[in-house]
Amino acid sequence: MKVSAYGTENATTPIHEMEIERRELLPNDIKIDILYCGVCHSDIHMARSEWGPSVYPIVPGHEIVGIVTEVGSNVTKFKVGQTAGVGVFVDSCRKCSCCKEGLEQYCDEGMSPTYNGYFPDGSPTFGGYSENYVIDEKYALQIPFTAELERVAPLLCAGITTYSPLRYAGVGKGHKVAVLGLGGLGHMAVKFAASFGAEVTMLSTSPSKEADAKQLGAKHFALSTDENQMKALENHFDFILNTVAAKHDMNKFLNLLKVNGKMLVVGIPPEDNRFNAGTLIGKRRSIVGSMIGGIAETQEMLDYCAKHNILSDVEMIKMKDINEAYDRVLKSDVKYRFVIDMKA
Amino acid sequence: MKVSAYGTENATTPIHEMEIERRELLPNDIKIDILYCGVCHSDIHMARSEWGPSVYPIVPGHEIVGIVTEVGSNVTKFKVGQTAGVGVFVDSCRKCSCCKEGLEQYCDEGMSPTYNGYFPDGSPTFGGYSENYVIDEKYALQIPFTAELERVAPLLCAGITTYSPLRYAGVGKGHKVAVLGLGGLGHMAVKFAASFGAEVTMLSTSPSKEADAKQLGAKHFALSTDENQMKALENHFDFILNTVAAKHDMNKFLNLLKVNGKMLVVGIPPEDNRFNAGTLIGKRRSIVGSMIGGIAETQEMLDYCAKHNILSDVEMIKMKDINEAYDRVLKSDVKYRFVIDMKA
Repeated sequence: MKVSAYGTENATTPIHEMEIERRELLPNDIKIDILYCGVCHSDIHMARSEWGPSVYPIVPGHEIVGIVTEVGSNVTKFKVGQTAGVGVFVDSCRKCSCCKEGLEQYCDEGMSPTYNGYFPDGSPTFGGYSENYVIDEKYALQIPFTAELERVAPLLCAGITTYSPLRYAGVGKGHKVAVLGLGGLGHMAVKFAASFGAEVTMLSTSPSKEADAKQLGAKHFALSTDENQMKALENHFDFILNTVAAKHDMNKFLNLLKVNGKMLVVGIPPEDNRFNAGTLIGKRRSIVGSMIGGIAETQEMLDYCAKHNILSDVEMIKMKDINEAYDRVLKSDVKYRFVIDMKA
Repeated sequence: MKVSAYGTENATTPIHEMEIERRELLPNDIKIDILYCGVCHSDIHMARSEWGPSVYPIVPGHEIVGIVTEVGSNVTKFKVGQTAGVGVFVDSCRKCSCCKEGLEQYCDEGMSPTYNGYFPDGSPTFGGYSENYVIDEKYALQIPFTAELERVAPLLCAGITTYSPLRYAGVGKGHKVAVLGLGGLGHMAVKFAASFGAEVTMLSTSPSKEADAKQLGAKHFALSTDENQMKALENHFDFILNTVAAKHDMNKFLNLLKVNGKMLVVGIPPEDNRFNAGTLIGKRRSIVGSMIGGIAETQEMLDYCAKHNILSDVEMIKMKDINEAYDRVLKSDVKYRFVIDMKA
């Protein structure tokens, strides 16, 4: 079927209206009429082919919430008229140990990304800057919210990306947690860590972020550019959730971890990170990577958010304003996620 | 008391005979007449002030086994005539949470190293290239061996340095473990990992090490310089114990870890390590530092070694030949630890 979308044919052309082809529904598929789609920094990287060669034409968008408008003959999880979500991937091999354990994001064969990649059958995937998405119900999420659905959309990437490592590390009551970087990921990390019972400190280069960080749930704020403040926090934290995707001095922050402390890394800077082995060894510190979450854990996160009233803080835009939004994302000028109102 | 020792007054003078001063026994002290002292690569680094400014005069040696010849009035753990050992540290603050939890090596105040540092009272420490050591019994180890004591000495550093991270990581039956680097640490890592039930692969740049690695307990061997062999081992290991203290490409080895795999780092290269955040994130891999072990765990390791007949492979030297031994250590020309026969 022909579907109206926004995307681009190459790394330098701005995002513009185009038409894409989506498959007719297979027995396990649902069609989701898209209401809202979050704007993730990775949309920009991939639209511009900054993370290895992109698959063009590209239609970005992997924080999708919408209404089910059609279901295949085998569908049991969704009914027409229900709200549904799509996150960062839409299929995987389903056979490897990761897929069997609900860690589809780490699939041995590689997951099928929501855009900038291929379904297992070889057809290209196109993201949420579009009218609708056709997806196997197994990879779609149930949305346990009835209002503020625009604030739910970013949970599908920014939310799960921070929820999963905090859970994997066992963050909870009694822990001191630092969050590094206050953007789309960082603001969700503060909300989750605080909600899990941890005492949260926001580490930022910008004093202007203190008030916001505290409103989001941080108990403390420290300027990472202030040597004295950094010195005072040495050997202090059980966990640091590091969302920074720019080049940064990792040793400075590793030093803030206590014995057995863990730095949870979710940001990918453009060049290799560096760390001093002695800094890691001297306090048995760890660096732990984490990427989004599996379908079951994403559902768990959504259910947790609904129960604890956790939502993303968003600024709404129209689809036609996407290129201006990209410019502002690149200047970190957004609190904290742009969400496209696909019906505006 | 005056004690005969071998050390140096500065970074450039070779190790030579000298006289040092040790304290008279305090009520909790024991005096150990040193029989054997292992030669650790860090002895060379510290004798030559390569790890920050050393404390001179310096008397290296922190893999010490000897006989108790005198005990203070409060001593209960040792009797005159018993065998005792000294490892990498000889005191700590005894008050911080690490000291209370048996992680004295990570003491908040900093442990007192066996040499190249100070006791809590401010007097300098001198290592095992000497006639005897005076140490609080709390920081001395019981040696549950009656023979081959020279092969026990390296367990006090090379042994515990590899035993502790393998235990901390929970290495056991069913795990695939790679050991990176076949030297003093690496040869013990192979023995321990195999003994814990893991399937061990030695990764080395030198084909000549295959036979030795297999004799030590490795089931497999792979040339880390062979791209095809490395490619075949991608996403293969649960753990990599990385003993390399030279600059190396960490990403190449991180790629060999499966999902949730952990690289256990015990070597300290002269410059920062580098890793690609994407390599860590894409499979939820971790990098975990570890430094020696606490007194209780060191004792546990010695008891484990006695029970399972695990000993270091050593080459014996005389004290006067220490400078030639250093030259050979720097060329990795030793299988796998020089041990000084202090009575020869």
